[in-house]
Amino acid sequence: MASSSTRTIRLAVIPGDGIGPEVVAEGLKVLDAVAGAHGLAFDRTEYDLGAARWHRTGETLPDSVLEELRGQDVILLGAVGDPSVPSGVLERGLLLRARFELDHYVNLRPVKLFPGVRTPLAGVTPDDVDMVVVREGTEGPYTGVGGVLRRGTPHEVATQESVNTAFGVERVIRYAFEQAAARPRKKLTLIHKDNVLTYAGDLYQRVLKRVGAEYPQVATDYCHVDAATMFFVTDPKRFDVIVTDNLFGDIITDIGAAIAGGIGLAASGNVNPDRTAPSMFEPVHGSAPDIAGQAKADPTATILSVAMLLDHVGAPEAARRVEQAVSADLAERGAAVRSTPEIGDAIAKRV
Amino acid sequence: MASSSTRTIRLAVIPGDGIGPEVVAEGLKVLDAVAGAHGLAFDRTEYDLGAARWHRTGETLPDSVLEELRGQDVILLGAVGDPSVPSGVLERGLLLRARFELDHYVNLRPVKLFPGVRTPLAGVTPDDVDMVVVREGTEGPYTGVGGVLRRGTPHEVATQESVNTAFGVERVIRYAFEQAAARPRKKLTLIHKDNVLTYAGDLYQRVLKRVGAEYPQVATDYCHVDAATMFFVTDPKRFDVIVTDNLFGDIITDIGAAIAGGIGLAASGNVNPDRTAPSMFEPVHGSAPDIAGQAKADPTATILSVAMLLDHVGAPEAARRVEQAVSADLAERGAAVRSTPEIGDAIAKRV
Ligand SMILES: CC(C)[C@H](C(=O)O)[C@@H](O)C(=O)O
Ligand SMILES: CC(C)[C@H](C(=O)O)[C@@H](O)C(=O)O
Repeated sequence: MASSSTRTIRLAVIPGDGIGPEVVAEGLKVLDAVAGAHGLAFDRTEYDLGAARWHRTGETLPDSVLEELRGQDVILLGAVGDPSVPSGVLERGLLLRARFELDHYVNLRPVKLFPGVRTPLAGVTPDDVDMVVVREGTEGPYTGVGGVLRRGTPHEVATQESVNTAFGVERVIRYAFEQAAARPRKKLTLIHKDNVLTYAGDLYQRVLKRVGAEYPQVATDYCHVDAATMFFVTDPKRFDVIVTDNLFGDIITDIGAAIAGGIGLAASGNVNPDRTAPSMFEPVHGSAPDIAGQAKADPTATILSVAMLLDHVGAPEAARRVEQAVSADLAERGAAVRSTPEIGDAIAKRV
Repeated sequence: MASSSTRTIRLAVIPGDGIGPEVVAEGLKVLDAVAGAHGLAFDRTEYDLGAARWHRTGETLPDSVLEELRGQDVILLGAVGDPSVPSGVLERGLLLRARFELDHYVNLRPVKLFPGVRTPLAGVTPDDVDMVVVREGTEGPYTGVGGVLRRGTPHEVATQESVNTAFGVERVIRYAFEQAAARPRKKLTLIHKDNVLTYAGDLYQRVLKRVGAEYPQVATDYCHVDAATMFFVTDPKRFDVIVTDNLFGDIITDIGAAIAGGIGLAASGNVNPDRTAPSMFEPVHGSAPDIAGQAKADPTATILSVAMLLDHVGAPEAARRVEQAVSADLAERGAAVRSTPEIGDAIAKRV
């Protein structure tokens, strides 16, 4: 029973497809292990969304479920997507719908190499890879605006439109400045392709300059997305906080995951900083159907997403605790192969 | 004087800005060294285009120059762009205008790690990195379609449109199948983001399938662009020939350059396979104003672009000769620092 000083948080859990349920189970294990000592209780509701529901009912994220989610404080998601469902149906109907409807305008993705973790880059140390990507989450090329004309004929035209607004760009850039101002290096890099995508790039550049005037302590610079992907590999140290659009952010955070030890360690938060709707935390990786059900998935990304969730619900000490437990576990991991629950157990024991 | 068996090729040379003229000089040095022995003579015309001309006249690529270029057989370009010119003016007005007007629908970019070259990836050998990226060059997000509404107000909207046609997608995919069919591994990977950019992605997927029926000997697969950037770093061996859109191709070929030893070695061809206009060969790197005029630029990317140019004008033996000379030079390079002309001299001596 919760003591008088226990705060109860309504947590929506969406395990999803493939390895989603397996990694979420470990995330919750760690959450349970850390919550009590920090005066937190999580009132969980599990939502059955993903491939199975779509096959059964044709639904991805029904309005009624979306309304229920709005009544929760925060969401933990595993992964969605399955080869039996046409590409895009679950991604757009469930994941992106949640991000857009719940106004997750910040997609927050730390890229941090923990000590003891192997990176594919020669000669790179944890000091060299420690950045935070602030990816816009509610506009850009992800709006779904576009269409197709004369489908299937030799005269077919297919369009996709990137829609960017001063409103949307300003709020994400402002958030990125706040992040940069709170970090030791205080550096913010805009990543875009303003020499080709001139309208959108110019908007980002002008807003960066205008908002930047309010943060004289933060140094800003700019990097084309193509060059940025190169620097992730050849000189990751040049980045501290990055702000970028929805599609560029998608791409660079996967390279970020690669250089920071792999997709099994990459955490993310779909954040609504204004708290007009619950934020959603999830590993960057997908549902990995090829290894599902075999206890082979690394739950670390989900556990680090749980740490971000704890930060978001105002429990930074619990969040640090989880991060330190992960860090200690990673430092001692070596080449040993452990099952999904073994990794979860080991980290839960340390928190 | 040209002997009776000498073939004369009209070559347009656009040195451009920054290190452009320096690297082009070395490319031409090697071209001169190899041409005669293979029965080729190059009738060169140099075009003064780039930042200086823009400052002087406001012109980027005037119609009259474009018409002259159409009368040439092939083009060698150094680099364009200078910090004194607003971002995008030269890129769009000169480089992209040439690619679009001369219908360079294939942007061909080999990603090959030569023996002796240092890659930032730990444990990766030349066998692991040997691919060819076939990047679409005349549509997608590079069309310039888009606009801005209420510029500079809190209600600004900036759009960019990706336009993709069955005509444009089919011809580049067909070219990629031809490339794949001619290589030992015979594997073609489509890189896109069809779960989000559903209209364009679906068009690429359907055309891949339809054209693929004509190439049963080529194995095809598909990879999301975000995952692909990760695999470039963690598992480059999985790629043989890649076909992708204009923007994804821009991004992945920069990571490609990074893993294959850096932007100083990355060559490219803007190819019009139907030969309705001259093709244009250029290093992937930019004008690097920070090192311009110091003889510090590596001309190897331009020299490898000259090899691609030789292939295009029907001189494969001369092309192999240049590649072998570069390969031999790279194998013996070690850590020695040489000037731009020293590298050009060394390679010219070997052809
Ligand atoms: C599954 C997909 C729609 C999603 C995205 O593109 O945002 C994923 O790649 C991610 O990065 O979270
Ligand atoms: C300079 C720029 C317009 C160009 C591009 O985006 O295509 C360059 O990055 C390239 O890859 O050739």
